[in-house]
Amino acid sequence: MTIKYGPIEDREASPAVRAVFDDIKRTRKVDDVNNFWKYLANHPPTLQRTWESLKEVMAPGALDPLTKELVYLAVSVSNGCQYCTASHGAAAKRLGMTEEMFGELVAVVGMANETNRLANGYRVPIDAAFEQ
Amino acid sequence: MTIKYGPIEDREASPAVRAVFDDIKRTRKVDDVNNFWKYLANHPPTLQRTWESLKEVMAPGALDPLTKELVYLAVSVSNGCQYCTASHGAAAKRLGMTEEMFGELVAVVGMANETNRLANGYRVPIDAAFEQ
Amino acid sequence: MTIKYGPIEDREASPAVRAVFDDIKRTRKVDDVNNFWKYLANHPPTLQRTWESLKEVMAPGALDPLTKELVYLAVSVSNGCQYCTASHGAAAKRLGMTEEMFGELVAVVGMANETNRLANGYRVPIDAAFEQ
Amino acid sequence: MTIKYGPIEDREASPAVRAVFDDIKRTRKVDDVNNFWKYLANHPPTLQRTWESLKEVMAPGALDPLTKELVYLAVSVSNGCQYCTASHGAAAKRLGMTEEMFGELVAVVGMANETNRLANGYRVPIDAAFEQ
Amino acid sequence: MTIKYGPIEDREASPAVRAVFDDIKRTRKVDDVNNFWKYLANHPPTLQRTWESLKEVMAPGALDPLTKELVYLAVSVSNGCQYCTASHGAAAKRLGMTEEMFGELVAVVGMANETNRLANGYRVPIDAAFEQ
Amino acid sequence: MTIKYGPIEDREASPAVRAVFDDIKRTRKVDDVNNFWKYLANHPPTLQRTWESLKEVMAPGALDPLTKELVYLAVSVSNGCQYCTASHGAAAKRLGMTEEMFGELVAVVGMANETNRLANGYRVPIDAAFEQ
Repeated sequence: MTIKYGPIEDREASPAVRAVFDDIKRTRKVDDVNNFWKYLANHPPTLQRTWESLKEVMAPGALDPLTKELVYLAVSVSNGCQYCTASHGAAAKRLGMTEEMFGELVAVVGMANETNRLANGYRVPIDAAFEQ
Repeated sequence: MTIKYGPIEDREASPAVRAVFDDIKRTRKVDDVNNFWKYLANHPPTLQRTWESLKEVMAPGALDPLTKELVYLAVSVSNGCQYCTASHGAAAKRLGMTEEMFGELVAVVGMANETNRLANGYRVPIDAAFEQ
Repeated sequence: MTIKYGPIEDREASPAVRAVFDDIKRTRKVDDVNNFWKYLANHPPTLQRTWESLKEVMAPGALDPLTKELVYLAVSVSNGCQYCTASHGAAAKRLGMTEEMFGELVAVVGMANETNRLANGYRVPIDAAFEQ
Repeated sequence: MTIKYGPIEDREASPAVRAVFDDIKRTRKVDDVNNFWKYLANHPPTLQRTWESLKEVMAPGALDPLTKELVYLAVSVSNGCQYCTASHGAAAKRLGMTEEMFGELVAVVGMANETNRLANGYRVPIDAAFEQ
Repeated sequence: MTIKYGPIEDREASPAVRAVFDDIKRTRKVDDVNNFWKYLANHPPTLQRTWESLKEVMAPGALDPLTKELVYLAVSVSNGCQYCTASHGAAAKRLGMTEEMFGELVAVVGMANETNRLANGYRVPIDAAFEQ
Repeated sequence: MTIKYGPIEDREASPAVRAVFDDIKRTRKVDDVNNFWKYLANHPPTLQRTWESLKEVMAPGALDPLTKELVYLAVSVSNGCQYCTASHGAAAKRLGMTEEMFGELVAVVGMANETNRLANGYRVPIDAAFEQ
């Protein structure tokens, strides 16, 4: 049998895990945490570190939260992570992403993946102007 | 010997290729095109189709041009395309990306690549709430 | 209709395929082979070559079998191959991987994928000290 | 200091390594082997296994050698492996790939990488017709 | 709730979308379009541009349509896109790909992904002969 | 001009950055930090968060530090990150990785990337035994 975890629900959670779950719920204003957090809870240090990192990285800054979430979604689509595409699509939608924005974002992700390979195929050297 | 192209410079370009180069220079308000275009010019249909597609995909829409360029840069960093990271970093900078924005963007790309793998490892099932 | 194979079961297998199945079962001390082998059996040369290669590559050496299996699992998680993550998780568990080890391994895979992109984004040059 | 190998040249090679080098030169009708083989020679079991596998996989079959080399090149471009793009470009050229064929191949690789991400973004379900 | 599109069926399609569907059906001689097109139809500009690009890129040229489809399939397998592997496997089969050809193609894709990493691990420098 | 950072050397570093540099040097028993840290220092929050995360993730645990470093190196080779392959090769060597161990590790990474694609190509379903 493989290592196949089940989700850790709130009621089964250790105090340390429940503290993280509570902070997620408070920060995101939701009643329950995503499966991602329930599964990560199988390894509490990873749950804690990931949540703390995400809070820091996704906070409003020079980039606003919606832009950050759009970037996160774009990378998830690019990497083909189905879970992440679904969950970050939800997050972006909650922050204001419309269907038209999503359509344009997916189009950009597609083009970027195309031109990355064109650059690979022709082994294009970096322009001197970019090294300044 | 491999297939190793050199760049097609303006003066060597066929009329069809020069027409594309001129449109790029006009649209981007630059005096010369990037190496990417000079190398793509070895296959004129690809040069033409790629430029037309990029004009359409990167035009202002529900997402503004800077946001689109940030997404393009994020995918390029995620894919490890050095050329694309350099050229789209330049493009984003011209459109208003600051060093702080870049630092935050790279941090998001890093986190997304990390959590994508955490989701893979725990084989997290997609929440029912995301299927609505 | 696409090319969609079904699994080749023992009883339907040609002698050459059954010989490979038997060797897998003998080597791994199992009663039946994984779906991976049953599907590869649709192309007997690939089945044979893959099994022979795996026996060689995964044999005890300077790295012990558990370490090799952990590396295999890490790459599978990194690449997002669901089948491989499940099957190599099972293999690693049989060789002694505990849940804590798995949690730590997934954390390392996540971090490596994160810092790979940070290195991409900042286009970090290789230190001279590494070229010695 | 990192692990940084140098190439193993013919004259420094062990008899086992030289035997592989000779077979490569004989099979490919060349005077010297590529850097790939010289560097793999640092781990003779890998050198031997890789060469034997390649001979088997790339032999004429239902697919002819040029088609197989085009596929190999396409994957190398797709993965962004600069060495592999250069060396398999050379191999494909020797087998008859023209510049026009290369241009068309790179265009296909680009499109495939684009539409793969479009399918990811819209999480397109597999048509029933494909499961027959 | 995430952004989760449903397929746009012919009868619900706008005139612009239906025009693309009709062209696909006419060109491919089929009665209905794949799910890929039905989902892309949620963003009509992307549907249109993708179909026009594919027609151009996959047309007979220096490479024949079957070879182009084999390359497309190889990249899809390499990238792990399940949808694309299924749909391009179907397309290749319609153009003449046999089970033996498919088995050989998958074997090449596997080998290419293996040797790409060997080249990475040993950081093999590009041979001077490839720069000519 | 693109966003192209230079390394932040110790003497130019802000107190916060120097504190991280000092901790790296103390923890790793080195006189200077890698280029990776010098370039990350352009975005001090990322420098700090990455170092703290790495300390936690790479600490001795159920997996010993060498095993963790081998996994990190394997992922770096798999992803084709040249910088990371060089730097983590150095780190693993310092912790006891021999040339033979490295050769075996690269072989495993290659095989895993090969069989991941074979599993993709045949769309192998996950065995029921793995879901227990």
